Amino acid sequence: MDAFKLDHRLANDSISILKTGLCDFRLSRDCRWPWLILVPQRTDITEIFELTPLDQVMLTFETELASTALKKVTGATKINVAAIGNIVRQLHVHVVARFEDDPNWPGPIWGYGKPEAYEDAKRDQFIKTMREALSS
Amino acid sequence: MDAFKLDHRLANDSISILKTGLCDFRLSRDCRWPWLILVPQRTDITEIFELTPLDQVMLTFETELASTALKKVTGATKINVAAIGNIVRQLHVHVVARFEDDPNWPGPIWGYGKPEAYEDAKRDQFIKTMREALSS
Repeated sequence: MDAFKLDHRLANDSISILKTGLCDFRLSRDCRWPWLILVPQRTDITEIFELTPLDQVMLTFETELASTALKKVTGATKINVAAIGNIVRQLHVHVVARFEDDPNWPGPIWGYGKPEAYEDAKRDQFIKTMREALSS
Repeated sequence: MDAFKLDHRLANDSISILKTGLCDFRLSRDCRWPWLILVPQRTDITEIFELTPLDQVMLTFETELASTALKKVTGATKINVAAIGNIVRQLHVHVVARFEDDPNWPGPIWGYGKPEAYEDAKRDQFIKTMREALSS
């Protein structure tokens, strides 16, 4: 089996904050929304249904972990979960904290406007807080 | 426990084609994309993580069933799966067949343009085909 290799666009646009049994948990570099991207560390997978049943269940519970941690840390109004992948075909699941005054609410975040970078200190603090929430 | 009651907007915008262990499988009345909406028949649930672990696993496998059936029937380039719910808060999962020449490709479908209705005969034929694919 080939070693897992992260798509270069995911590598550029997000930062690894934790690796679990299945996924690389990554923080999007776009600060407009608190936004995690879960990448199952499996080769040549585009659709969730291409994962084994066990991996699908693991993805479900790792998505739950990401969702509950993000809800707890941010107090979001709504968590948006999506596997789209029309552009980047390597399977990845978006877990996004949404608020009623955020950009494009209540519409979707994907493809909306231009990414905005975190300030370094805010990004590092958010990563620390999320790591603690994901591990507790 | 209160009886399950479908949100009136989901009731208006989609048609039930099958009920399984957990979900009401519904076809969106918007014909621009082949688009299923899975509604877990549980009361007062907004987020996937509010479902019991067993229901989360059932939702995973029913989403897989919807995805593989939609892929098989339509030959889609990509299946988009999402639980957003910023407007309609009753938990529902979108499973959408996407093509490179469809409206707003490769962007998301939610909130894009105006819904277009199926012709009755085409809708009925698609429902029949999907029911067979979901049951085989």
